[in-house]
Amino acid sequence: MNSFGRIFRITIFGESHGESVGVNIDGCPAGLPLQTEDFLQDLERRKGGMQKGTTPRKEDDLPFFKSGIFNGFTTGAPITILFENNNTRSADYAKQRAVPRPGHADLVASQKFGGFEDYRGGGHFSGRLTVALVAAGVIAKKLLSSLESPVSVQSGITEIGGEPDPEKGLEKAIQAKDSVGGIVECKVKGLPAGLGEPFFDSAESVLSHAVFAIPAIRGIEFGTGFAAARMFGAEHNDAIENQAGLTRTNHAGGIVGGITNGNELVFRIAVKPTSSTPKEQQTLNLETGAVESFSVKGRHDLCIALRVPVVLEAVTAFTLADLLMLERHVPRILKR
Amino acid sequence: MNSFGRIFRITIFGESHGESVGVNIDGCPAGLPLQTEDFLQDLERRKGGMQKGTTPRKEDDLPFFKSGIFNGFTTGAPITILFENNNTRSADYAKQRAVPRPGHADLVASQKFGGFEDYRGGGHFSGRLTVALVAAGVIAKKLLSSLESPVSVQSGITEIGGEPDPEKGLEKAIQAKDSVGGIVECKVKGLPAGLGEPFFDSAESVLSHAVFAIPAIRGIEFGTGFAAARMFGAEHNDAIENQAGLTRTNHAGGIVGGITNGNELVFRIAVKPTSSTPKEQQTLNLETGAVESFSVKGRHDLCIALRVPVVLEAVTAFTLADLLMLERHVPRILKR
Amino acid sequence: MNSFGRIFRITIFGESHGESVGVNIDGCPAGLPLQTEDFLQDLERRKGGMQKGTTPRKEDDLPFFKSGIFNGFTTGAPITILFENNNTRSADYAKQRAVPRPGHADLVASQKFGGFEDYRGGGHFSGRLTVALVAAGVIAKKLLSSLESPVSVQSGITEIGGEPDPEKGLEKAIQAKDSVGGIVECKVKGLPAGLGEPFFDSAESVLSHAVFAIPAIRGIEFGTGFAAARMFGAEHNDAIENQAGLTRTNHAGGIVGGITNGNELVFRIAVKPTSSTPKEQQTLNLETGAVESFSVKGRHDLCIALRVPVVLEAVTAFTLADLLMLERHVPRILKR
Amino acid sequence: MNSFGRIFRITIFGESHGESVGVNIDGCPAGLPLQTEDFLQDLERRKGGMQKGTTPRKEDDLPFFKSGIFNGFTTGAPITILFENNNTRSADYAKQRAVPRPGHADLVASQKFGGFEDYRGGGHFSGRLTVALVAAGVIAKKLLSSLESPVSVQSGITEIGGEPDPEKGLEKAIQAKDSVGGIVECKVKGLPAGLGEPFFDSAESVLSHAVFAIPAIRGIEFGTGFAAARMFGAEHNDAIENQAGLTRTNHAGGIVGGITNGNELVFRIAVKPTSSTPKEQQTLNLETGAVESFSVKGRHDLCIALRVPVVLEAVTAFTLADLLMLERHVPRILKR
Repeated sequence: MNSFGRIFRITIFGESHGESVGVNIDGCPAGLPLQTEDFLQDLERRKGGMQKGTTPRKEDDLPFFKSGIFNGFTTGAPITILFENNNTRSADYAKQRAVPRPGHADLVASQKFGGFEDYRGGGHFSGRLTVALVAAGVIAKKLLSSLESPVSVQSGITEIGGEPDPEKGLEKAIQAKDSVGGIVECKVKGLPAGLGEPFFDSAESVLSHAVFAIPAIRGIEFGTGFAAARMFGAEHNDAIENQAGLTRTNHAGGIVGGITNGNELVFRIAVKPTSSTPKEQQTLNLETGAVESFSVKGRHDLCIALRVPVVLEAVTAFTLADLLMLERHVPRILKR
Repeated sequence: MNSFGRIFRITIFGESHGESVGVNIDGCPAGLPLQTEDFLQDLERRKGGMQKGTTPRKEDDLPFFKSGIFNGFTTGAPITILFENNNTRSADYAKQRAVPRPGHADLVASQKFGGFEDYRGGGHFSGRLTVALVAAGVIAKKLLSSLESPVSVQSGITEIGGEPDPEKGLEKAIQAKDSVGGIVECKVKGLPAGLGEPFFDSAESVLSHAVFAIPAIRGIEFGTGFAAARMFGAEHNDAIENQAGLTRTNHAGGIVGGITNGNELVFRIAVKPTSSTPKEQQTLNLETGAVESFSVKGRHDLCIALRVPVVLEAVTAFTLADLLMLERHVPRILKR
Repeated sequence: MNSFGRIFRITIFGESHGESVGVNIDGCPAGLPLQTEDFLQDLERRKGGMQKGTTPRKEDDLPFFKSGIFNGFTTGAPITILFENNNTRSADYAKQRAVPRPGHADLVASQKFGGFEDYRGGGHFSGRLTVALVAAGVIAKKLLSSLESPVSVQSGITEIGGEPDPEKGLEKAIQAKDSVGGIVECKVKGLPAGLGEPFFDSAESVLSHAVFAIPAIRGIEFGTGFAAARMFGAEHNDAIENQAGLTRTNHAGGIVGGITNGNELVFRIAVKPTSSTPKEQQTLNLETGAVESFSVKGRHDLCIALRVPVVLEAVTAFTLADLLMLERHVPRILKR
Repeated sequence: MNSFGRIFRITIFGESHGESVGVNIDGCPAGLPLQTEDFLQDLERRKGGMQKGTTPRKEDDLPFFKSGIFNGFTTGAPITILFENNNTRSADYAKQRAVPRPGHADLVASQKFGGFEDYRGGGHFSGRLTVALVAAGVIAKKLLSSLESPVSVQSGITEIGGEPDPEKGLEKAIQAKDSVGGIVECKVKGLPAGLGEPFFDSAESVLSHAVFAIPAIRGIEFGTGFAAARMFGAEHNDAIENQAGLTRTNHAGGIVGGITNGNELVFRIAVKPTSSTPKEQQTLNLETGAVESFSVKGRHDLCIALRVPVVLEAVTAFTLADLLMLERHVPRILKR
């Protein structure tokens, strides 16, 4: 489904080279001030700006409010935001259909949708749709920061191409004339204890559900994560130090028994290297039936992980907004 | 929520030391033969049997069918299965309430439910509830194996205490007088291409959602997983070799763009060391307000990861059953 | 699906002549006092007691708490309640299979579930399942009455066999040696304005959804209902008289634009005559392929409408509990 | 929630005098041919055309496809359709805020959304949103008619102002200088037996859920409906005449035990008289606190029931499409 959330519910739609991509948000409290300017910084972060390793895009990515906002405030009715796709050249995509790109959804999309899918630039499977996630994230983060006990979400790169210093990781990619992956970490401060629902809506369950909607994610780990599998119990357990549940260490990453424990929420995700690499690759030619060499045309990101932090913040924020609503931490109407 | 799945829907309930734990399964096709014997092997696997590192349990864990089964077949109506809790001694739990165990849900449960929670032995947060997951898994696996194109799910330990040989890992724990964690892998054969729904119900999204309902899981990775973040793109991409989508390598673990691609599905999860370690630990005494040393009483698993494979098979199987139903791969009525 | 509700979620299961029928309730706040005695009066009302027109049943209908209740209070974990089926004679049902009873689900159940359905006494389609609804209703009504602004739900018969006086309606049935239907009305006091969600979760939408889960219901109308279709606008509109939204008349039945308006909620439902009538009827014999006369054996209610009020209260109460939770009117933990 | 459906899922959004109204449809099979022309007839029917009793509108109501359609076919990705609001004059609405119109959602919207709601012309509560329902209905009806066993949905007026002849009913309204209500009937041919899910997703449950999303509906009845409450059982029961379940009469309206029985589906809804009547009415002035007389300005429909048939077809069609998908009657990919 293209929807997520039980009370604060996000629906995204659109295609890379179609008319538009967009997002519908149902269940947002009335009274949240919202204007175009609120979106610009995160939309810019998503584009990767002037960073090495991301392709320049000329799209303005301006959000068009189509419903749910009135006189500069959310109304309580569903919010719809559209982004037009201006900068698209689709002419040559038909030719490329015969050659499904490795690592991309080209072939599975064709299998799933019988050839009716919009195949241009990945269509509905494109990373272009993360612009819709980011827009929802802007609203969710603004909502979280407006609560009586504000919650803040921050993501950053911790590793590119195996290097803690992103610049070094990118340099490796440039020298290898190949793409690289990376690790992105997310930290959330101010979260109350008690979020998450046993058994199937554990905090990790719903967060990972949302996170794997981001293209190119291959893994997620909470707190000490995979390293915990190699620790002793006495070493991994976090000693509780006060009634609020503050712990001496935070190996649990802020979640125990699937429920937030009031400590900082910490998790990391693995981003695979960009599938569209400058290197020559092999794949099937559906017309000839032969495996042949091919090269991706055009400019592509050397490392999509660079664009991921703002998207990760977004999905984290709207997932937490929903959990906070389930726990009655968010009023239906915000105070003016 | 204690429910999961859109069409094949699992609801679990119960407490470690309450009357019973159980499971309700709605949306199972009519005509699946089902009897007590189908459950015994997996229930036994969950108990860890004679393995080193697991505690002996005297419970029989017999499934009682309370609804949805008639004349040895599923009827299409919701199936309810109950497991009685016989082997429980609750007398001394009240005393232990003042000392929330590190790594357990004791304190968060109290914060979330205001002290009304059944605190005995972890209550609703107990690993005891996995017996309900296993029961659902037995049904789901039987259903998957009965399809025209059968699907098989298998999980196994790949690492205990950092050692590929489980016996060595356990030995480490015994010598350190501490508990250890482990890594469990799941492999699924026979899955058709096309499962998973963009954007929010990617195959990874729904699988990870279900997986993190298992207690003690700290991370999940698909295919090459976290290692992918350190690979080059040309190295990570899987060359497509035929029309069915078979790939030369399987770094993707059988999922591309959130959709299964017809190759083997492969993922791994990290299990933390048992929180109830033999080692002395520190935690808050809620009555005195002081941090003090405490030791867990009774016998506990040195390594809960040993019990996880059958549980992982279970959640994987019922999650895939649901995805297969969404893709119309499962009939409403099975042939006799 | 056998589940209903977004936050306060009811799941029912069981068969008329199977092991048991039961209910699972997820999302109930912690701290609601609950004991067997709370259920007895409504369970008795459902049986129709000594009323003319209902069959005597010897079942005790005692609720067995299987999960979610501890020390006399709800724990916040899912509540499971079981009712055993003791008083069942199934021996002769197999013979009756060939003759699907008119007005009953016999034939559609067989078509839907391919003959695997539990056909004894209506199986999962039996009115026996309403015992599970009533149990959920007891909890919901107790919850509603424990709110800071208590809400009370009351249903009653307004018409039996076309007569405002139920005794007269029953007399008609007895004289005609046939069964009769009736009208049941539900009134809810204390409901705040603002419940219901545009567009698809209007108060009428969710109430009617739940109401039509009750067997034998053929229609529902809110406020003036069908009579409104024959009124003039100026006659039907309710003049608003104060800031709280109190209206001079209540033709709207307490709902405007799909949202409760703070006035009394009023709606009525039509209950069809009992399908198992003493009169000889005609139906298909599936074995012979011929339409033949048949008579229902055993004693049956002359008028099932007599049992409906307590069931209608139940579904109304748990539906409203859910709407109240969505509007943040119900805390997660009740005060002791 | 502004969404409905489990597999075929409709989300609507927008306001009467905002930027736009629109609909998102998730879960539509790939391969359904779709173009602007498919929508025009139903959009025209909704406007009421040249009929007496409806106001002339100059809006073109052209559907703009924003996602999910490519080369004239649905792609399997979510479809978004937008309708611009061109013909709106909002200037004078602010003044009217102080005087909530009886029968409209003005006051409850303000109570629910704290004054942040878009109050112009009913905002999100406006009948204007039925254009989105109609658009979804066009797609659903085309889908139903393209099935191997085609299903057809048809609605019509059976009564206006208490008169079987609509013209007479309207004449009454014109002479009384008041608005009138009406009854609308829906009939569905070609529906297979077995649709509907016990217990909570009975066919009546889901249909009534959708139907009450249409503004101004006050009641719904299936088959003989409320009249059934005044019939004897032997009179009401439909004799089964063949293996397919064809019945001699159709008092049940095609649904038994909550499940379709293969006969024609028949139900009726009651539409209240237009709240905006030409007659002078009384309501509260929120500024003065006094109840005062007021008159609705502008031209309004004398009878909104006239516009309802096409909307009723729409909600019926998309509800049935969802039930058909749950029963695996609709493929994921349509044949070319």
